[in-house]
Amino acid sequence: MLSWLLAVTLAALTGFTAGYGGTERNCSITPPYLPSTAVDSSTQLAALRRKMNPLKISAYIIPGTDAHLSEYIAPRDARMAFMTGFKGSSGTAVVTQTKAALWTDSRYWVQAEREMDCNWELQKDVSVSSITQWLLAEVPKDDVIGFDPFLFSLERHEDFSIILESNNRTFKSFSDNLVDAVWDKRPSIPSDNLTRLPDRIIQRTWQMKVQDIRRQMKEAPNKPTAVLLSALDETAWLFNMRGNDIPYNPFFYSYTLLTLNKIWLFLHKERVTEELKRYLNSSCTDSLCVQLMSYDSVLSEVQKYVARPKVKVWIGTEYTNYALYEIITPQDKLVVSSYSPVLTTKAVKDETEQRVLREAHVRDAVAVIQLLMWLEKAVPEGKETEVTAAQYVNKCRAKQNDSRGPSFETISASGPNAALAHYSPTSETSRKLTVNEMYLVDSGGQYLDGTTDITRTVHWGTPTAMQKEAYTRVLMGNIELSRTIFPSGTRGVNMEMLGRKALWEVGLNYGHGTGHGIGNYFGVHEWPVGFQSNNIPFTAGMFTSIEPGYYKDNDFGIRIEDVALTVPVKTKFGNNFLTFETVSLVPYDRKLIDTSLLSPEQLKWLDTYYETIRRVLGPELDRQGLSAEKNWMLKQTESLRHTTSSSNISSSSLPLLTLMFALIQSVL
Amino acid sequence: MLSWLLAVTLAALTGFTAGYGGTERNCSITPPYLPSTAVDSSTQLAALRRKMNPLKISAYIIPGTDAHLSEYIAPRDARMAFMTGFKGSSGTAVVTQTKAALWTDSRYWVQAEREMDCNWELQKDVSVSSITQWLLAEVPKDDVIGFDPFLFSLERHEDFSIILESNNRTFKSFSDNLVDAVWDKRPSIPSDNLTRLPDRIIQRTWQMKVQDIRRQMKEAPNKPTAVLLSALDETAWLFNMRGNDIPYNPFFYSYTLLTLNKIWLFLHKERVTEELKRYLNSSCTDSLCVQLMSYDSVLSEVQKYVARPKVKVWIGTEYTNYALYEIITPQDKLVVSSYSPVLTTKAVKDETEQRVLREAHVRDAVAVIQLLMWLEKAVPEGKETEVTAAQYVNKCRAKQNDSRGPSFETISASGPNAALAHYSPTSETSRKLTVNEMYLVDSGGQYLDGTTDITRTVHWGTPTAMQKEAYTRVLMGNIELSRTIFPSGTRGVNMEMLGRKALWEVGLNYGHGTGHGIGNYFGVHEWPVGFQSNNIPFTAGMFTSIEPGYYKDNDFGIRIEDVALTVPVKTKFGNNFLTFETVSLVPYDRKLIDTSLLSPEQLKWLDTYYETIRRVLGPELDRQGLSAEKNWMLKQTESLRHTTSSSNISSSSLPLLTLMFALIQSVL
Repeated sequence: MLSWLLAVTLAALTGFTAGYGGTERNCSITPPYLPSTAVDSSTQLAALRRKMNPLKISAYIIPGTDAHLSEYIAPRDARMAFMTGFKGSSGTAVVTQTKAALWTDSRYWVQAEREMDCNWELQKDVSVSSITQWLLAEVPKDDVIGFDPFLFSLERHEDFSIILESNNRTFKSFSDNLVDAVWDKRPSIPSDNLTRLPDRIIQRTWQMKVQDIRRQMKEAPNKPTAVLLSALDETAWLFNMRGNDIPYNPFFYSYTLLTLNKIWLFLHKERVTEELKRYLNSSCTDSLCVQLMSYDSVLSEVQKYVARPKVKVWIGTEYTNYALYEIITPQDKLVVSSYSPVLTTKAVKDETEQRVLREAHVRDAVAVIQLLMWLEKAVPEGKETEVTAAQYVNKCRAKQNDSRGPSFETISASGPNAALAHYSPTSETSRKLTVNEMYLVDSGGQYLDGTTDITRTVHWGTPTAMQKEAYTRVLMGNIELSRTIFPSGTRGVNMEMLGRKALWEVGLNYGHGTGHGIGNYFGVHEWPVGFQSNNIPFTAGMFTSIEPGYYKDNDFGIRIEDVALTVPVKTKFGNNFLTFETVSLVPYDRKLIDTSLLSPEQLKWLDTYYETIRRVLGPELDRQGLSAEKNWMLKQTESLRHTTSSSNISSSSLPLLTLMFALIQSVL
Repeated sequence: MLSWLLAVTLAALTGFTAGYGGTERNCSITPPYLPSTAVDSSTQLAALRRKMNPLKISAYIIPGTDAHLSEYIAPRDARMAFMTGFKGSSGTAVVTQTKAALWTDSRYWVQAEREMDCNWELQKDVSVSSITQWLLAEVPKDDVIGFDPFLFSLERHEDFSIILESNNRTFKSFSDNLVDAVWDKRPSIPSDNLTRLPDRIIQRTWQMKVQDIRRQMKEAPNKPTAVLLSALDETAWLFNMRGNDIPYNPFFYSYTLLTLNKIWLFLHKERVTEELKRYLNSSCTDSLCVQLMSYDSVLSEVQKYVARPKVKVWIGTEYTNYALYEIITPQDKLVVSSYSPVLTTKAVKDETEQRVLREAHVRDAVAVIQLLMWLEKAVPEGKETEVTAAQYVNKCRAKQNDSRGPSFETISASGPNAALAHYSPTSETSRKLTVNEMYLVDSGGQYLDGTTDITRTVHWGTPTAMQKEAYTRVLMGNIELSRTIFPSGTRGVNMEMLGRKALWEVGLNYGHGTGHGIGNYFGVHEWPVGFQSNNIPFTAGMFTSIEPGYYKDNDFGIRIEDVALTVPVKTKFGNNFLTFETVSLVPYDRKLIDTSLLSPEQLKWLDTYYETIRRVLGPELDRQGLSAEKNWMLKQTESLRHTTSSSNISSSSLPLLTLMFALIQSVL
């Protein structure tokens, strides 16, 4: 799944075009025209402005994220949507006493025009300089621009602060969120109890993990006395626990302060069952006792800890919020790295995690194969759409063992819709599936033992030569990257061009990244593994997606995404080299592969991969009694090399054969 | 030529081993043993300490660089060598009232032990933290550690400053260098007059370049009013002038302050002839008049300029010295980018520059071919050495038109010497060349129209299977990188793994970078083009070296280096794609190429390259009347594919042929 990887510049090229007539607001006429989807924001705006007044806040910034800078947020953190009506996943709102503005990128312009009333102006340049320019124009010198420090990363805070402060505005943090104060019906914390992972999928207990992190703290040159965990997957990983506070993401609201001899877990304590209290050993205060603290006390407790002499708190600067950062003073109490030792340790999966994540991919492949087989039959009958296909694959996954729902909103896109960044079908945009269009489906599942993410692109009719060539070259990119051998410690960003090389050869390219980390029942995009410049180097035991693509505007989109594990590989001369092993197990569309473009090594890789699918998936399909699916799979995974190489021999030997026949004839 | 690309970590593995007996100092006995090569440093040390006293400097730092942070320095800038006796090209010296220490990396440890007396301790960890730890141990709190700000880059200054200041030492700049003050016989500025480049190799006059840079200043968003040029090649490029102040580098001491309507050129004015004064239009002060200023007045003149209202000075932060940086205050008078617009403009060669640099490579190839042909005949006779080979190629180059000497000290290395980083033969280390060892020669020439740099590795006897495989894989890396097609604007660092991929496949690698910029009669390593992470993205018209290698400790070294030009390439579907065109024109050693490892595309590239050598170099060899060389070249550039593909056909068709013969026999 690629959404987060997309450059906004690409999105600008592929955004919706306007012209839906009455479905968008028109604020330039009197009275303004508002579609039925628009939300009346007058009450909440007035309430917020009343709160701003006594605090002398001239402008208040409302980011779209949460206090853990999560990629997905819970409904109770949808403050931007509550204030503006706009429900898109990315944006920033700003309110003054007389104006209100929303910044969002081109993917969401139409949606914003549909969902906002005329209290809000839509700003289309989402850069920090665009927002600060607006603020400088609206806010007089020496006035206060307020923000919630929990909702700013260190970097974003600095970007705003430099510009605003150097222009004599006061950029001031208010740790009590003003929107929350006026949000009467703010959703409460989900009542679902937290869960611990079952022993069968766990190798390292939380006690072992705690001890490992403490060992790393002691070995660190700058001698931290504590690690502060603020990303939700950090705490979930450390304690082998999960929740479901955020759609598609099995996390629970939490922070952890782990010192060399104490463990403080900040969460909503009422959610912790007696069994979990025993599991966490929470009735004591020794070094392997988890002391349960109120979620809202994190700031004051960290402040108290920092006030002690000779303490040093280690944080990951890529994702810790500014509220926690600013209270760790003076600076020599701070130890920073891009990622905490929890995130770098979590990136390398242990043997059990590797095994169960592979198993999750076997069951997941069954569901995707069921979808593809069904579509092959159903599409020509003309009744299926992008929406029904998405529903079908979700249902197939739900039937698999340990299923916990989809890992993100399924991207089910036909024809030109597949060329749109971030597209997921709605009742308005859903296209009927036909044999005349290419179809792209990017979907994934959450399972108790693992998270999956896979994209396949298919054509049920006759692809054009260009479609076939583009598809083959995307596949070549996937294969070249997957089969590459590299020294342990190589950065993804230094290899990812292998995913593009076959496309570049004919002047094609794609505008998103090439892959992201993924793991055992976490968010589908698991930092810090992947092919971006801020990902950590690859070592053995990391899972990443590999997902090159090609998109032709207003025509079609291709993406081929698999999940792969970094594994040691034996080489002729050297040691400590790695390669990728693909753990997704779904065949590619044979109709779209031009085998004449593939190198012998690529064909061999493909055949070996197909043999693996047969060997691993065959028994699982048998076990589930899915004989039609097994036959379909066997047909799809027939060797591609066999046909190709024999035809190669005959063509290259043709002149020789002609000569021989001539000889025979003359002899006879 | 790779020296600057090498990681010190690699150097540590391949450094000289000690044990030359009496050739190194022994300070642990009484009296100390000093070899004849050691320099008595007592007089200069005492003099320096007398200078430090009245200034209350407790420790004085003496870097090995010059005020332009040049890669090579002039004898008059060899302050570290003057103080220590150590003449290696990399190091830092520190002097207190009681101690003196030199930091240099493993390449130079033996040399330092030979050249220094016992006044100096040798420190082997060259990191900033090693030097500052030593300083913190030797210098009491609140004392002054002095340095010459002209000899520190911004980054190095900050690295020192943070540690020393936060430990309560005063890190203080003294712009009058203390070593110069005690250096009686400091070499003077070379008396050679400066030269302007002849019109035949120039497309853009200095006036055109000035106007182009001014246009870029006006278009820059932060509105600089001046550009300050401190790298020697910046001024040399801007005025189409050259000097010879630094060995191998045709530069002259200079700075330029270019404003929107004035040009100040800082240099030793007595060196400027009347003709050059007319050329520079130096008798006026208008916008296209070059006002000649004293080299030593740069600091005071820049200070005066900065004191004016509403001025902003643009500098390149990667190479401007701290002395110039610190006087541009307050900060809002400073405009920074990694490289000045002069360096980024200079990186893209115009049509004339491209043409004459190609021509220089044609003549250069003649010299290298003369060397290789001569060695092939002379080595088996047993009288040639690394040193005589280096002398031979230098002589061959000197005979070519517009020759201006070598562009760096020739690396001529046989057998295990070729596995040493930074090796150049001396009378002590020079090995006899034999048919039993591989030989690597990395050399280059300065010509009035261009700078060259090429490495070839050969074997005159029978290479081992391992040598042949390693050589072939290095060649595959060179070819894969050379033939790659990529979008204009791709960074070298994102492609350079193509130079390593064939080696990685069998567990091999190399510990240096993959290439550097090169140009028209400048330093052989021309920033900011290349494959490092701080190089600028590739666009059309840039020249870079491509130089993968492989080194087997104590055995042999392989490097294959060519210079290539980025050129637009027509692709099937897209626009704005580039590829490399190799402009070095010397065939590779056929004996070392295992064609069965090469892909059909690589073989095709090689044959096309050889056709180019024949087409371009043939007429030049004719013109120079070198018929033996031409025959040698023709033999070396015979198609490699022809033999290979026919043998491939026959082997793949063998079963078929056997069958046919059987058939014929049975028929008969």
